[in-house]
Amino acid sequence: MKRVLSGMRPTGKLHLGNYMGALHNWVRLQHEYECYFFIADWHALTTDYADTSQIRPNTREVILDFLGAGLDPAHSVLFVQSDIKQHAELHLLFSMITPLGWLERVPTYKEQQENITGKDLSTYGFLGYPLLQSADILIYQPDFVPVGQDQVAHVELTREVARRFNQFYPGAQGSEILPEPQVLLTPSPKLPGTDGRKMSKSYGNTILLTDPEPVVRQKLKPMVTDPARVRRTDPGNPDVCPVGDLHKVFSSQETLAKVYDGCTTASIGCIECKGWVADSVVKVLQPIQERRAGYEANPKKVDEILEDGKQRATTRAEQTMVEVRSAVGIG
Amino acid sequence: MKRVLSGMRPTGKLHLGNYMGALHNWVRLQHEYECYFFIADWHALTTDYADTSQIRPNTREVILDFLGAGLDPAHSVLFVQSDIKQHAELHLLFSMITPLGWLERVPTYKEQQENITGKDLSTYGFLGYPLLQSADILIYQPDFVPVGQDQVAHVELTREVARRFNQFYPGAQGSEILPEPQVLLTPSPKLPGTDGRKMSKSYGNTILLTDPEPVVRQKLKPMVTDPARVRRTDPGNPDVCPVGDLHKVFSSQETLAKVYDGCTTASIGCIECKGWVADSVVKVLQPIQERRAGYEANPKKVDEILEDGKQRATTRAEQTMVEVRSAVGIG
Ligand code: SF4
Ligand code: SF4
Repeated sequence: MKRVLSGMRPTGKLHLGNYMGALHNWVRLQHEYECYFFIADWHALTTDYADTSQIRPNTREVILDFLGAGLDPAHSVLFVQSDIKQHAELHLLFSMITPLGWLERVPTYKEQQENITGKDLSTYGFLGYPLLQSADILIYQPDFVPVGQDQVAHVELTREVARRFNQFYPGAQGSEILPEPQVLLTPSPKLPGTDGRKMSKSYGNTILLTDPEPVVRQKLKPMVTDPARVRRTDPGNPDVCPVGDLHKVFSSQETLAKVYDGCTTASIGCIECKGWVADSVVKVLQPIQERRAGYEANPKKVDEILEDGKQRATTRAEQTMVEVRSAVGIG
Repeated sequence: MKRVLSGMRPTGKLHLGNYMGALHNWVRLQHEYECYFFIADWHALTTDYADTSQIRPNTREVILDFLGAGLDPAHSVLFVQSDIKQHAELHLLFSMITPLGWLERVPTYKEQQENITGKDLSTYGFLGYPLLQSADILIYQPDFVPVGQDQVAHVELTREVARRFNQFYPGAQGSEILPEPQVLLTPSPKLPGTDGRKMSKSYGNTILLTDPEPVVRQKLKPMVTDPARVRRTDPGNPDVCPVGDLHKVFSSQETLAKVYDGCTTASIGCIECKGWVADSVVKVLQPIQERRAGYEANPKKVDEILEDGKQRATTRAEQTMVEVRSAVGIG
């Protein structure tokens, strides 16, 4: 079986954007690949080093959402990054061979520094975090890295680092110890938040995987719609309506047909249409929330899953590091 | 007992400059302090990443020279940096809180980049190596760091990093987990190499701790002397003569008196004077070489010493990391 690895920062309770942009896809992958999925808690320090109080509770929320979404410890190795100390060791070795310019040129570097205000991001670690990502990835020698479009540049850096490492430090009989992984682009449908902008924690426009049905309905009720549909009698167009976008992702073909028909002919109101989309979203969330509740009621089980993931990930990472240390001639 | 820590890069067989600039002092310290001395093999990668073939053999030479010089595993913890993975973990955590500007301002940064030609030092790891040093030091929570004048700026950075860490992450009851260590300035006498310049591997003017007596005599014979003493009948001045400098470091008071008298009155020749200095150097080297030969003949014993050092250093480093992880709230 080909190997796949991906990770997510512990941003707290996950929302539908996280689900459709990653988790939903990961759940499918675990039946086709040997899967490693991790919570990148060290990465949280790159932006939150001044207040780390939320990293542990957020990590817990994310693992619960992982399990709720259907990641199955019987099929995937689920672990917390900082449990696997080998990532830090490989990151250190990579730092020695990586030109500063490679990191300064990562598109997200300047961008994030400008976007995230109120935090001092001119740290050594913030500059180096794509290299930590490279270590996170390459230490599992994966064939594929499922990521969204916004992460493709990081995987490209990872591939460059792997090439450079393999050039400097060939393995036995000239083999490549760190094969270049391929990007497995996660299909990410347009997923607007309640204000019509991209669903994102920083916009405060999210629907959480843990939101109970009344909250989902309440959040969707004031949602932005096709701006051309001012009165109930004006026909609308689901293709320029954020509610329409949600229907495309979560509703059945049947419901979608009713929406197109009703909206374009002004035979349904937006309130009714939002009720339908709430039905669809709740239907997706229900099994997630049930599974999650099961794990929430059994925190020991979650601890065991993470402990087991730690053991399995450590074994796999150490296997790579034995080769790496031997090739580098150190340690 | 107060704790002391210091390290040295694995540059290969050590010379008299390394001995007088560090080792000789370390040997004295081990009876007054709890001592940790290590070989900084990860640091060797900052400059030698493109050819790492010498790091392992050099590390072996340095540990033999440590033991030959009189570092005693019964009194000091002797270890190899890369055996203690916790250094990499703490380095990673430090990277998150350290402003880039602090590293760019380290005086040796630009200097070394200019001085070391033929190697590309514009890497992420080269910029960060003072931070790796900070982790090397602070993870043992030492009271003192014995260093030469040229390393004082690095210890100052280490103290700044400790302050910043302690501010962000106070320990139980507001305690400081990483106390700021004090510099213990190693007295470093002027030690010229055979060409009169500072003894340094890069000048090729060294006398190695392993040089047999005939080699020592042969290297000292053509040594530069007081340039004013052109003819045998010209009086000289040991204070402006590199051979005189060596006498001050290695010769007895009695010999030194004979040198001053004989040189300033032109009653001895430089050849004779160099013979005396060779006698003094050989006398210092003899016990070192005897001890070293004992260890060379027993490589298993050396392995055991390093394994024991690894265990003890790991235990001590892990003790700090337990506090660190708890305070940072991660791992
Ligand atoms: S009916 Fe539905 S798709 Fe049409 S504008 Fe209203 S909310 Fe949007
Ligand atoms: S006699 Fe000795 S000290 Fe005087 S110049 Fe010659 S080598 Fe130097």
